[in-house]
Amino acid sequence: MTAENGARLVADPHNPSGEDSLIARYFKPLATDPGALGLVDDAAVLASSGEDIVVTTDAVVEGVHYLATDPPDTIARKALRVNLSDLAAKGATPAGFVLTLALRSKEDSWLRPFADALGEDVRTFACPLLGGDTVSTPGPQMISITAFGRVPKGRMVGRTGARPGDLVFVTGTIGDAALGLDVLTGGVTADVLKGDRIAQDYLLDRYRVPRPRNALAAAVLAHASAAMDVSDGLAGDLAKLCAASGVSASVEVHRVPLSQAAAAAVSAVGLEKLVSGGDDYEILCAVPEAHCDDFARGADQAGVPVTAIGTVVAGLQAPRWTDAQGREVVLNRLSYSHF
Amino acid sequence: MTAENGARLVADPHNPSGEDSLIARYFKPLATDPGALGLVDDAAVLASSGEDIVVTTDAVVEGVHYLATDPPDTIARKALRVNLSDLAAKGATPAGFVLTLALRSKEDSWLRPFADALGEDVRTFACPLLGGDTVSTPGPQMISITAFGRVPKGRMVGRTGARPGDLVFVTGTIGDAALGLDVLTGGVTADVLKGDRIAQDYLLDRYRVPRPRNALAAAVLAHASAAMDVSDGLAGDLAKLCAASGVSASVEVHRVPLSQAAAAAVSAVGLEKLVSGGDDYEILCAVPEAHCDDFARGADQAGVPVTAIGTVVAGLQAPRWTDAQGREVVLNRLSYSHF
Repeated sequence: MTAENGARLVADPHNPSGEDSLIARYFKPLATDPGALGLVDDAAVLASSGEDIVVTTDAVVEGVHYLATDPPDTIARKALRVNLSDLAAKGATPAGFVLTLALRSKEDSWLRPFADALGEDVRTFACPLLGGDTVSTPGPQMISITAFGRVPKGRMVGRTGARPGDLVFVTGTIGDAALGLDVLTGGVTADVLKGDRIAQDYLLDRYRVPRPRNALAAAVLAHASAAMDVSDGLAGDLAKLCAASGVSASVEVHRVPLSQAAAAAVSAVGLEKLVSGGDDYEILCAVPEAHCDDFARGADQAGVPVTAIGTVVAGLQAPRWTDAQGREVVLNRLSYSHF
Repeated sequence: MTAENGARLVADPHNPSGEDSLIARYFKPLATDPGALGLVDDAAVLASSGEDIVVTTDAVVEGVHYLATDPPDTIARKALRVNLSDLAAKGATPAGFVLTLALRSKEDSWLRPFADALGEDVRTFACPLLGGDTVSTPGPQMISITAFGRVPKGRMVGRTGARPGDLVFVTGTIGDAALGLDVLTGGVTADVLKGDRIAQDYLLDRYRVPRPRNALAAAVLAHASAAMDVSDGLAGDLAKLCAASGVSASVEVHRVPLSQAAAAAVSAVGLEKLVSGGDDYEILCAVPEAHCDDFARGADQAGVPVTAIGTVVAGLQAPRWTDAQGREVVLNRLSYSHF
C-alpha cells in the first residue's frame, strides 16, 4: 500500500522520463480536443453551448470481460466501443471520454498497441481522450471509460418512451458475439463450424471488437421513442426497455436478424443462446409507426441495416416471443446475470 | 470469463430481486438529480446552460490506495472526495458523478455502509450520483469515479496561469495524511506519538478521509491564476504546477502549515516526508498580488485556512525551497512514483 492516489494521465514537463510522463506520452496523441488541455491538467473541460451532455460509463476487467491473452488492440477497442454504443443508442454525438487504466505493469509491448488502437478509434468515431488516471493493481487489469456525447437539450433518447403500436427494431445481426465466445471457449459452435475458418473468425471478431452503431445516432434521435444498446442479450434488454416504458412487446423469433455464420450454427446451439448471449452492441429501439419509413430511410443513408422484429403492446407482462407459426417460444434465460 | 459487459447501476422493474436491481437499490437514493433518470437508463444527462463542464476522474484500488480492512464508509468517502478535491481546485461547483465498482462479491455488510456513507457525502457536497457500472472481479476491489463540476465558460482554473510575482498559497495543513499512513503501518510517527492517541487518530483520519476544499472553489475561481489539489505531495505538485506555467517558485519551508500532531512529529520523521508524502487534498494555488487580500477574505468567509508559503519567480528550474535562514533545502524525493 502506498500513500499516493494514482498517476493522472498528465505529462510532467519537469520530469519527461518519469513514469507518469511515459504513460501520458502514449495517450497524448489521443487528446486532440482543446478541452483535454494537452493532458497537462488534472481536469478537462467539456464545453457546451446549451445542449445536454450524455454521460455513460462502462468497465472491462481482465479475465471477466476479456482474456489476458487477448490482443491489447482489441481490448482497447472493446473498452471504448461499448461506451460509444451507449452514446449511439441515446442519439448522442460523441464528445470525448476519460480513461482509467488499472495496470499491473507498464510494458511498452502492451501499452503501445493499446494506445495505438485506441487512437485509431478516437479518429474513426471522432471521440477524443479528455483525460484519465492510471493506477497500479496487483490483480487483474481493468479499463474503465466514461464517455460523453451531445444531444439537443431535453432530447436524449431514453428507455421510457416506448408506446403500444411502436415497432421494435434492431440493427445488424444478433448473437454473433455469443457464438464467438463459444468458438473461443471450444463450445458447440466450434464443432458446428469446424472447417469453416471464415465463419469462426467472423464470430470471434464480433465478440472481440464491437461495431457500435454511431452512424445511426441521428436517425435514433429523430425517430425513436425509446432505445438502448443490446449488451446483455436481446431478450433481457428488450424486457428492460419495456419495463422502463411500462409496456410489453410481441416479438417474432424468426425475424431476429442472423448472420450467415449464426444461421449455420443456430439449430445446433439453439436460438436462446443467440438472443440471451449479450455483447451484441447493436441498437434496440422502438419507433412510432408514423416514423418508421423515415427511420428506415435514415438507417439506409447511414449504411446501418435495421430489422423490425415485433411490436410494442400494452401490458406489463414480459415480452412475448412467438415462432413463424405463432406459437409461444419460452425463453428460460433472458440474459447473463452478473454474480 | 463471461460474455457480458457488466451490470449497470440500473434498476430492473421486471426483476426487482435480481442482482442488478439489488445493487441499484443501494445507490438509487443517491441519484437525486433529474439527469440520473432514477437509474433506469444506461446513460445520464448533464444539463448545461452554456457553462463549461469540468471533468475529473480518479480511481482507488484495494491494497494500493486503501487497505482491505479499511471501513467501507471511509473507502466510499475517499473515493468520492479525491474527485471533489479536484473540482474544488479548478474552481468548479460539483454537478454529479458516475461510479464504477469492481467487486469480488456483493455483501450487504460492505455495500450498505459504503452506499450510506457515499449518500451522506452526496448531500454534504451537493454532488449527486448520475449513474454507474458494477463489474465482478476476481482481484482486488476497485472504485473508479468520474466527477463533474460547472464553471462559467472559459473560466476553469488551470495549471498554466501562474506568473512571476504571484504568491503561492496552500490550504489547511500539509503532511498529515502521510503521517497517518505512517502511524497505520507502524512507522516512526507511531513511535513518536506513542501515548498520544488523539494525535494518532487525527492523522489516521486525515489519511483515510480527505477533506476536500470545495468551500474555497468560489475564491479560487475569482482570484487564482493557477491551481491544483495536493495529492502526490506538495513539493512535487508545486513543481508540476510551475512547469505547466513555465515558471519557477521560491518557497520557505518553515511557512508550510503543519498541524499540531505533525509539528510534534516533524523533527523525528523529517520535513521531506511531509511535503512529499501526498494524500493531502489541500489546494495549492498561485494568486496575483493584487488579488491576495480578496482571496484571503474569501477564504476566511469560506472558513478555509490559507497560508502563503512562497512566491512564483521567473525561470524554468525546479522550485527552490529555503529554510528560515535562507539556506537551500534539498528535497530528494518530490513525490511518490507510481510503478
